[in-house]
Amino acid sequence: MDDLEKLGLEVSKETREDFVNFKVEPLAVVYPKNEDDVIKIVNYARLKGIPIVPWGAGTSLTGAVACQGCILIDMKYMSNIIEINDVDWYVRVQPGVNLEYLNKKLMERNFFLPPDPASFFLCSVGGAVSNSSGGMRGVRYGTFRDWVLALRVVLPTGEAVRIGEPFRKNRAGYDLVHLFTGSEGTLGIITEIWLRITPLPKENLTAIIAFVPDLKSTAGIIQDMRRGGVLPEISEYIDNEVVKALNSALDARLKESEGGLLLLRLQSEDAEAMKEILKKWGADFTVLSREEWERMYSLRAQSALALKAISKEMYVEDIVVPVSKLAEAIERINELEAKYKVKMPVIAHIGDGNLHPNILVRDKEVADVIFEEVGKIAIELGGSVSGEHGIGVQKAGLMGEQLKLHNGLKVLEIMRDIKRLIDPNGIMNPGKYVELAYERARASNP
Amino acid sequence: MDDLEKLGLEVSKETREDFVNFKVEPLAVVYPKNEDDVIKIVNYARLKGIPIVPWGAGTSLTGAVACQGCILIDMKYMSNIIEINDVDWYVRVQPGVNLEYLNKKLMERNFFLPPDPASFFLCSVGGAVSNSSGGMRGVRYGTFRDWVLALRVVLPTGEAVRIGEPFRKNRAGYDLVHLFTGSEGTLGIITEIWLRITPLPKENLTAIIAFVPDLKSTAGIIQDMRRGGVLPEISEYIDNEVVKALNSALDARLKESEGGLLLLRLQSEDAEAMKEILKKWGADFTVLSREEWERMYSLRAQSALALKAISKEMYVEDIVVPVSKLAEAIERINELEAKYKVKMPVIAHIGDGNLHPNILVRDKEVADVIFEEVGKIAIELGGSVSGEHGIGVQKAGLMGEQLKLHNGLKVLEIMRDIKRLIDPNGIMNPGKYVELAYERARASNP
Repeated sequence: MDDLEKLGLEVSKETREDFVNFKVEPLAVVYPKNEDDVIKIVNYARLKGIPIVPWGAGTSLTGAVACQGCILIDMKYMSNIIEINDVDWYVRVQPGVNLEYLNKKLMERNFFLPPDPASFFLCSVGGAVSNSSGGMRGVRYGTFRDWVLALRVVLPTGEAVRIGEPFRKNRAGYDLVHLFTGSEGTLGIITEIWLRITPLPKENLTAIIAFVPDLKSTAGIIQDMRRGGVLPEISEYIDNEVVKALNSALDARLKESEGGLLLLRLQSEDAEAMKEILKKWGADFTVLSREEWERMYSLRAQSALALKAISKEMYVEDIVVPVSKLAEAIERINELEAKYKVKMPVIAHIGDGNLHPNILVRDKEVADVIFEEVGKIAIELGGSVSGEHGIGVQKAGLMGEQLKLHNGLKVLEIMRDIKRLIDPNGIMNPGKYVELAYERARASNP
Repeated sequence: MDDLEKLGLEVSKETREDFVNFKVEPLAVVYPKNEDDVIKIVNYARLKGIPIVPWGAGTSLTGAVACQGCILIDMKYMSNIIEINDVDWYVRVQPGVNLEYLNKKLMERNFFLPPDPASFFLCSVGGAVSNSSGGMRGVRYGTFRDWVLALRVVLPTGEAVRIGEPFRKNRAGYDLVHLFTGSEGTLGIITEIWLRITPLPKENLTAIIAFVPDLKSTAGIIQDMRRGGVLPEISEYIDNEVVKALNSALDARLKESEGGLLLLRLQSEDAEAMKEILKKWGADFTVLSREEWERMYSLRAQSALALKAISKEMYVEDIVVPVSKLAEAIERINELEAKYKVKMPVIAHIGDGNLHPNILVRDKEVADVIFEEVGKIAIELGGSVSGEHGIGVQKAGLMGEQLKLHNGLKVLEIMRDIKRLIDPNGIMNPGKYVELAYERARASNP
């Protein structure tokens, strides 16, 4: 700590927790003011062999910023919007900028950055890029990895470089931008980000709320929607337990129905086809006014908080299944509920098969077992153990299983080797994510 | 050759050329019928230390498939559409399938794969993925890298693996899909591809043709379009020399104007704003009927052929500049024309700053000098030496310069090291692209 202060850096000694109580117990927290400060910290850590972990706003859900004895690099002073370029369609920011604030500034200029993770009002853009976060608009606009153009990065070897170019069409060299996006702080410290921006849509959108009679219909509606070529802007789902939680915690006064509630917003050209599908499956639906839509969007965004309010402990899962396997996935989650006598209300970005079963159980050990079982459902149905929350330490074992089964252990080995190549001293957020997944997969049978 | 036949493979002995006359002089051409055949070839080449080069339809423009003494792997027998999945929104294909044929099959189901390289009627999908090709719809829909979900690949070490998952939202591990897409056959042999598909658009589109009074106005119109938040489906440009070529070679009867011709198709919500911009800059424009649009789209697609018809030799450039630098880029291309007393008619995906100056000169050495100078314009204006044609051998030196200046030599070194990591024996299309770019950049001053 004294050493770091002698380098002219602001330093504190404190412990923290991430959003789901993974412990962050660093040797020291350092607050760089610019890229030179970051280089100083990396070089110091490299020479001393001390792990370094970048910290944005601490909204990680997977232990990606957990550490013991690391140097924690808190990016809070590096939070400027450097440039909004409305001709080249990018925004250039420092990693510590708040996502909601950034989008507010963009919207003043009639542009926006579509990905809207539930933590948008809290999270840093650097964290969202490191995690390649998603959100409700993902079905139409993709996740953060679809919006990063270029990054400035201080590599674990101390060099500051730029990855990519600040425009979309670039074929000069291997695509490292996507490699660094979603690398969870294991490949370097991001010091600047160029993100693609796009005009606010001018098209006519129709918002629909639909109460679905049973679970089978929920999957059927979404599958018919896709088969019918309807690409919604938003297609969200909350099951009836979540509806109850919203009614009880936030006085939402939503109608209950066995199959839960769908929230859809789509191009008006698609509205009639969608209504026919809803009728076919016996859903009770209403077209929403702008104000009613805003209220429902906000209630959907608060769904996890409402669940947390009615239950003491909650473990948020994040799996993806092919849309064609939605019915089986929901059925198997229900079977797990029965097996463990536990409630698992489902919140879902259902249009792209991304489900968040929320495991409501106090016993941490039981929760861990169920957590793994839910992950295995995704793997067995040909899906993924993470759609948008990432891996960290929490899901490394499951990720190892998925890649070993779906891709081949060799693919995990390549990921681990790329990590070693870029971080030869093993100081950047070590022992997590691809390293840990590879270790677990290699050790497991078969 | 005998050895390969003994392995049960179909083999021939022949030489070829790519689309721009780079020589392909292999020891043998092999025609695998399935992934097992590919593994046999790779293992044979690995043990013998012979370079291997995959061949799709030979439409490369950069020498990416050039070789002397390699084993050429012709994918023509591996050209099946394995599955069109209209619920999970992917198509699964073998690499040899023709792109136009694939899109015809998709359109029968009301879906499509948007990227439309000019060679779409000739090229193989495997080639387009290896090259991360672009096209006219790029400004709205991106290039091939935005549409690849997953790949099966035979690695240079002989293992067959899958990279990625056949759905969009997946956070399990580093993003290697984008690393392999656009890797120009240097990291492995693609044996299967899952591509994202999307419904054919139902929205109302307005097509406009605009004759622009001068070059400054052309840049001004596109910059105002972007500043005004208009995201077109297509925004193409051909300069007046190209218009003349179309009139002379194809009897197109297009009006001539000093600033050339813009072809725009946009959401009808944006049409009025666009018309105001065109008026402001003094452009003479007409809204096109569906039939007129089809004719102009087709003429635009044939522009390069028309140029080739009126000139014996033509070198197609492919640079990107930030849209904010369009005026300077066109001006500097004009200066080069004057300096070398050479015509360089420009065809451009102008909405995303991707310019194709076509160097019309018979002397190969002079052409090479001009080619380099055009690349340097892109580098100096903060652009890229390739937007969609790739690097191969032709642009390795320029790519080295760009990365050294914009990104840092270390970034090139990482690319070269990733190549070595995945291809430790150096047999996959060696000595080109990132390897050659790194070598050139390291040797150059400063």
